Amino acid sequence: MSAARDSDKYATSAHYGGSGRISRAADRRSLTVEATFSLRSEVRLVTDVFAPTTPDLAEVYRPAGRCAAIVDATVDRLHGGALRAYFAAHGIPLTTMVCRALEEDKTFDTVRRMAAFLGGEECDVARDEPVLVVGGGVLTDTAGLACALLNRRTPYVMIGTSIVSAVDAGPSPRTCVNGTLIKNAMGAYHPPVLTLVDRALFRTLAPEHLRHGVAEIVKMGAVDDEGLLVLLQRHGRGLLETRFATTGEDRGLAAIADEVLFRSLYAYLRHEGTNMFETHQDRPHAYGHTWSTKFEPVAGLLHGHAVAVEMAFTATLATLIGWLDEDSRDALLEVCRDLGLAVHHPVIEDLELMRVAQESVRRKRGGSALWAVAPRGGLGKCDYLAEVEDSLLAEAVDRHRVRCAGFPDGGAGLGMYLRDARWS
Amino acid sequence: MSAARDSDKYATSAHYGGSGRISRAADRRSLTVEATFSLRSEVRLVTDVFAPTTPDLAEVYRPAGRCAAIVDATVDRLHGGALRAYFAAHGIPLTTMVCRALEEDKTFDTVRRMAAFLGGEECDVARDEPVLVVGGGVLTDTAGLACALLNRRTPYVMIGTSIVSAVDAGPSPRTCVNGTLIKNAMGAYHPPVLTLVDRALFRTLAPEHLRHGVAEIVKMGAVDDEGLLVLLQRHGRGLLETRFATTGEDRGLAAIADEVLFRSLYAYLRHEGTNMFETHQDRPHAYGHTWSTKFEPVAGLLHGHAVAVEMAFTATLATLIGWLDEDSRDALLEVCRDLGLAVHHPVIEDLELMRVAQESVRRKRGGSALWAVAPRGGLGKCDYLAEVEDSLLAEAVDRHRVRCAGFPDGGAGLGMYLRDARWS
Ligand SMILES: NC(=O)c1ccc[n+]([C@@H]2O[C@H](COP(=O)([O-])OP(=O)(O)OC[C@H]3O[C@@H](n4cnc5c(N)ncnc54)[C@H](O)[C@@H]3O)[C@@H](O)[C@H]2O)c1
Ligand SMILES: NC(=O)c1ccc[n+]([C@@H]2O[C@H](COP(=O)([O-])OP(=O)(O)OC[C@H]3O[C@@H](n4cnc5c(N)ncnc54)[C@H](O)[C@@H]3O)[C@@H](O)[C@H]2O)c1
Repeated sequence: MSAARDSDKYATSAHYGGSGRISRAADRRSLTVEATFSLRSEVRLVTDVFAPTTPDLAEVYRPAGRCAAIVDATVDRLHGGALRAYFAAHGIPLTTMVCRALEEDKTFDTVRRMAAFLGGEECDVARDEPVLVVGGGVLTDTAGLACALLNRRTPYVMIGTSIVSAVDAGPSPRTCVNGTLIKNAMGAYHPPVLTLVDRALFRTLAPEHLRHGVAEIVKMGAVDDEGLLVLLQRHGRGLLETRFATTGEDRGLAAIADEVLFRSLYAYLRHEGTNMFETHQDRPHAYGHTWSTKFEPVAGLLHGHAVAVEMAFTATLATLIGWLDEDSRDALLEVCRDLGLAVHHPVIEDLELMRVAQESVRRKRGGSALWAVAPRGGLGKCDYLAEVEDSLLAEAVDRHRVRCAGFPDGGAGLGMYLRDARWS
Repeated sequence: MSAARDSDKYATSAHYGGSGRISRAADRRSLTVEATFSLRSEVRLVTDVFAPTTPDLAEVYRPAGRCAAIVDATVDRLHGGALRAYFAAHGIPLTTMVCRALEEDKTFDTVRRMAAFLGGEECDVARDEPVLVVGGGVLTDTAGLACALLNRRTPYVMIGTSIVSAVDAGPSPRTCVNGTLIKNAMGAYHPPVLTLVDRALFRTLAPEHLRHGVAEIVKMGAVDDEGLLVLLQRHGRGLLETRFATTGEDRGLAAIADEVLFRSLYAYLRHEGTNMFETHQDRPHAYGHTWSTKFEPVAGLLHGHAVAVEMAFTATLATLIGWLDEDSRDALLEVCRDLGLAVHHPVIEDLELMRVAQESVRRKRGGSALWAVAPRGGLGKCDYLAEVEDSLLAEAVDRHRVRCAGFPDGGAGLGMYLRDARWS
């Protein structure tokens, strides 16, 4: 029996679809079900999302009759007034929960408190009512998980206020909390139904957060879109200095900022969007996310610097196996260095840690292969390493150490530690 | 771009599939993703699942090379020896976490501890490695959620040791914990890849748990399969007395026990399996699960009795709106009474509580309708009530009270309170 329903009369929500099929074995001892789920997710670039004349939020929340929002505490301090004024101008009641969102807050306890707010007396959000989530990657991950769990799936709209949450964590289906042994170990696949990306919000980002966010854009350039790397090479510093063209009046740079964001999002979603439930491991956007899962917390690095260190290291590894020439590797290092991103950190010289990371990621990815991403055949293209034997790992680490010893700072990044970026 | 991958080289797990499509708006301001996820789930009747000659478990865990299991404490006490002997006989290493699983344990804290066990040093289960879950509905709900969250989806095999977890909670995709305001408020859709149903395990069930479990079978008969109700009418008491034909040598009754389980599972999966992600609310198996979400905890009823009370009450309501004749309603009451299931409880006379339940379930189901299930046009068929106005609710409650006042016990069930069934 199939359930291709001919009407949407009983649809739980306009955002999600599903169907299934059941079969009985002739011996009446076994039943088999095949079921599918489908979703739709949009990412939209907007200008001044909280200006009362910007229609996007009102279009979602006027029909809903109200809005329940979870807002990052720092963002609330800086932009909460504008957010409230927007809903007031539209006459839409707004209930907010303001949350501290530091890396150490990525816990079940945070998620439980968020779910209690959303499902409690004050809100009691309906299963088809989109929650609003406003903040950086930490808030996205945790509030997204709270929405995933509440009523087993509640839609949400995301306003990515940091670079990371605008181009990566925001539209990402991965919601999560940290495990005791591995970052982002537990969670659910639950992308926003709509992600709004507004550069204007980047104006208040700390330079450290701006910079580490750009690492995820470098990543998409390195594995999918060399043109994006070229843009960063030419305009990356300018984008950092003007906080994505929000502090000056340079219209040319503003257009470039939008183009960089759009290309980065397209490169990301081309792979993520076709693999929203991570059922496959050919994931270019996992570049920089294999060994760093362990060395990032050990070294206390900001996520983007950890990703950059692994990208640079893996590029060196790629030169050893004939996947990449040294000039391309050096070009990647140059883009990173130019942006102030780390390309080396002594933590990767701990081979035991690196091996433990491999084993852990291998199990996390399923199957028995490592599928570490590395550039292959030039920047903008990549392939997947099924194995990295101990000897290759050791040689690559050593070669990379030697290469980076040539930099006066040893390849360090600007403000690369989590503690450098604490300001809330 | 579509991701119909032509090879399974990069598959995360053999159990799950996915694909997607992305489109760009011409103005380079919007990207849209459509993505699908698919799964396969089997339910199998087995005989003596822990007898070393029974191949099912070994077939799953020999290739995996080991087994990480979460086991209900009571079940472990009664059947843990057989479970361990089975894996020992097959030379497959087994690591178990034994969990108390009372209704009050359906919390995030339980789930977090389970996930820590599975993802910790001791197990570190891979994303494609099926965990084994052995227990009743409480364990299924919580351990299923731990598996859902670990690595954002880890498959599991379920051995439903209670009637409820064999025919309903076990193969169900609904994993959950209780919220502060509503039962099962938070969770994820994550059915087992394989559910093994072994009647032999029912031999040790407390009579209270056996009886309340049969309520879910009555439910499937009442809304989907009148023949199942007829079987229960004829053999229900015999099945209770012999604990599903496990205490005697009656081969005829054993065949009936299997037939009852298979029909109940088929009726359930015909609807649940075609709607695994609850994207639609035409769900016959939600019969008895609207008002009871509130009055079950308030009255401290065992789940099955709460469901039975609501089924009986809704049948009376159905007579008032011309959906059901009184004879059919009385036939349903008789089946329940014969099995010792409650058909009335004074808690439903609290109209304010009943209204609060309606509002809460309405929000939980999404959309704006209530979609309460009621039999229509005879037993074995049903329809969905979009609304139940205050006046109808009050009249139905009163009519049902009067009808049940005719029973010497007022329609009470045997051992219907949670506290009656506390024995672990
Ligand atoms: N789910 C995913 O796919 C995914 C992808 C990448 C990163 N992540 C996660 O995202 C996190 C990093 O994201 P992040 O860089 O956004 O970190 P974050 O959320 O910690 O934000 C950085 C800081 O900037 C503040 N902030 C955010 N927006 C601001 C604004 N507009 N103005 C001023 N301050 C603002 C925040 O309060 C915070 O102090 C990590 O936990 C990482 O694991 C997840
Ligand atoms: N997810 C769903 O779709 C779904 C459906 C129905 C019920 N449920 C949930 O299931 C729970 C009720 O399930 P339940 O009746 O299995 O409750 P339960 O898990 O509490 O089990 C009842 C008791 O029987 C014990 N037990 C289990 N198997 C046994 C065996 N073979 N021998 C001896 N004792 C055994 C348990 O330890 C427990 O004490 C409720 O929390 C309900 O909300 C969930």
